Amino acid sequence: MKFAPENAEMVYEQEKIRFDGFKNLGLNLNMSRGRPNPEQLDISNELFNEFSKSKGMSGNSDYRNYGMIDGIPEAKKLFAELSGVSEKEIIVMGNSSLNIMYDTVQRAMQFGVLGEEPFNKQGKIKWLCPVPGYDRHFAVTETFGIEMINIPMRSDGPDMDMIEEYVKDETVKGVWCVPKYSNPQGIVYSDKVVERFAALRPKAKDFRIYWDNAYMIHYLTEDIPLKNIFETAKRYKNEDMIYMFGSTSKMTFAGAGIAWICASEKNIEDIKKYMAFQTIGFDKLNQLAHVLFFKTPDGIRQHMKKHAEMLRPRFRAVLDILDEELTGLCQWTEPQGGYFIGIDLPYNTAKRAVSLAKEAGVVMTGAGATFPYNYDPNDSNVRIAPTYPSIDELKTAMRVFCCCVKLAWAEKIIKA
Amino acid sequence: MKFAPENAEMVYEQEKIRFDGFKNLGLNLNMSRGRPNPEQLDISNELFNEFSKSKGMSGNSDYRNYGMIDGIPEAKKLFAELSGVSEKEIIVMGNSSLNIMYDTVQRAMQFGVLGEEPFNKQGKIKWLCPVPGYDRHFAVTETFGIEMINIPMRSDGPDMDMIEEYVKDETVKGVWCVPKYSNPQGIVYSDKVVERFAALRPKAKDFRIYWDNAYMIHYLTEDIPLKNIFETAKRYKNEDMIYMFGSTSKMTFAGAGIAWICASEKNIEDIKKYMAFQTIGFDKLNQLAHVLFFKTPDGIRQHMKKHAEMLRPRFRAVLDILDEELTGLCQWTEPQGGYFIGIDLPYNTAKRAVSLAKEAGVVMTGAGATFPYNYDPNDSNVRIAPTYPSIDELKTAMRVFCCCVKLAWAEKIIKA
Repeated sequence: MKFAPENAEMVYEQEKIRFDGFKNLGLNLNMSRGRPNPEQLDISNELFNEFSKSKGMSGNSDYRNYGMIDGIPEAKKLFAELSGVSEKEIIVMGNSSLNIMYDTVQRAMQFGVLGEEPFNKQGKIKWLCPVPGYDRHFAVTETFGIEMINIPMRSDGPDMDMIEEYVKDETVKGVWCVPKYSNPQGIVYSDKVVERFAALRPKAKDFRIYWDNAYMIHYLTEDIPLKNIFETAKRYKNEDMIYMFGSTSKMTFAGAGIAWICASEKNIEDIKKYMAFQTIGFDKLNQLAHVLFFKTPDGIRQHMKKHAEMLRPRFRAVLDILDEELTGLCQWTEPQGGYFIGIDLPYNTAKRAVSLAKEAGVVMTGAGATFPYNYDPNDSNVRIAPTYPSIDELKTAMRVFCCCVKLAWAEKIIKA
Repeated sequence: MKFAPENAEMVYEQEKIRFDGFKNLGLNLNMSRGRPNPEQLDISNELFNEFSKSKGMSGNSDYRNYGMIDGIPEAKKLFAELSGVSEKEIIVMGNSSLNIMYDTVQRAMQFGVLGEEPFNKQGKIKWLCPVPGYDRHFAVTETFGIEMINIPMRSDGPDMDMIEEYVKDETVKGVWCVPKYSNPQGIVYSDKVVERFAALRPKAKDFRIYWDNAYMIHYLTEDIPLKNIFETAKRYKNEDMIYMFGSTSKMTFAGAGIAWICASEKNIEDIKKYMAFQTIGFDKLNQLAHVLFFKTPDGIRQHMKKHAEMLRPRFRAVLDILDEELTGLCQWTEPQGGYFIGIDLPYNTAKRAVSLAKEAGVVMTGAGATFPYNYDPNDSNVRIAPTYPSIDELKTAMRVFCCCVKLAWAEKIIKA
């Protein structure tokens, strides 16, 4: 047992030498965010030509001018089909699904959901947060002063027993979900989990599932289907309970894609009612360019294959190094898609390991970031983002990280 | 005196015959919104090629990816210069300045302004609304339940005596302004008015001037300078009191331009603090395309000359017909720029005239729309939007409108 406590001194000495060596390299590597790499961006460069070819016209429609608050019909058709909803159940918007989610929560705070009292006037309200999860989700609910409750992730999705229990509380108004290739573990919610979500009977009429389908087709080897929550919810007459979000941020250009919200017709009307005061419409030219570029849902699928081919070796490189260096010390999931690998370090060492890595020139996502309030009760989970660096950089960065994980563990044993 | 009351019967008979003739034409003309016409949009088509040429790269910066929440440096430089502020006093965002304004008010409601109590927690608050004004401004404040107070417009801007008096009230938190080529009258605020705005001493620390510089360079014949409110306010140590908004919506593509907010460094930091929870960044590729297209503030000025040339004959056609048909009955201002002509019809006839026009197939902006709560106490003001229709359509539409104005007046006299 390499990582038995009695070996801590030896591990410490070995890794300290490696660590000092890494430090002398003057590295400057960043694995903190889920950014696509330049080669991934390059495969969408044809988009630029679509702008030029279209001249903003589609038949007799001039998308250069004002109007069409819910998106151009072609984009609604394409992304509704991809998302498994009807064209009446989608609004195609601007370049950021985070912005749509934030605005959706803000509208609920200020104006309420479908005629219910605004959250702002309901006193303390609560939100369910599967952990580990996406830091920017948690930041939104924290900003609005919403109390967040940790829900442990299982291998097939969040702990549904807990969720079913918590939604009996009328002050629980929402749950953040990344149902497919979850951030950071890459887990796909099982059919049973989706079914249980779709069948929830929350006490609060204004409870909503915030279904952030960010990685809907972002597989690594082969796509794993996610059960259609809207279709399922309709069987329970529960379709008003779901908001689904999607974007092309990790299909085309991360900073300049398009994003959408899917919801029941009733919810869509409710959203549009307030949106009409906020904007006259989103950038329809970028919507048109995307439609012309992808053409069909199958066009998107073909395109995503190319991303998978570029990302697969990166994930492989990281996982191989984890296998080689940290087996027996840490636990991680082998993701089937998405942008991250979630790893659990030994109890109470994550902050230290990330801080050591930074000292050696490798920036990881902050320890704790995968938990509400930036607080991981075990100080254990770290999110690895392998997509942006080149494979060589990635290998170096992972060696540094693994070294730091071992150092942090050994230090802790020795001090104890 | 053609429009003396004793002539009402005669006018009625003449105009009724014209009106019936117009109705038989089956017209379908729309002068309700300030939309650029297709020829105006065409002069920006080169933008499409800028996308293609840039490939999203500027030097070593890859604008296709995430990040740069406050806009690309080149866009900040260009639009800061155009707006008369420093690069630290601007955030360049997405395609809609209305969206920025709405979000700015929403942030004040939810989080407060620069550390002050959120508006949501301050009970009844009030807003000053120069009238006639922009319907979408009033709709934003109405949506948030803010009480709106009418401030009459003078020939050189809003009635500043009233504004100075009202801001002594701590519940007054803002004022909507379109300081240059105002919507709908086309008035440019005089230096004296700008100076008095810049020197305001509001009771409320979180009072802000919402300076919507939508038509900053949208002249018709030659540009009339607007005094720089930021520079002026700095002399009074009052620069935190102003938010300025701008966009290229009426420079390039109305639905797909870029927009910005200018404010003091302190305000900009305050805004960015919350914006960081809302988005990772706006569409930088469109920002880049705009920078490459315009290059310099002078490039923008040259471009706007072309718009002026296209719009001038349209405004001329409308004004000539007004002169010919309504002199002695109505009052209007001859705008020096902007997108509208504001006209005051005889007391209590605007709704009727607009409704008659609709009957004859000509859609005008709804009567009342230029006032808060859609309520014009005199039922007199109508906004004419001459930019979108062709000159022939415009002439027909104006003949119909003038006929309806006279009919509405004559009907009222006869019934009385």
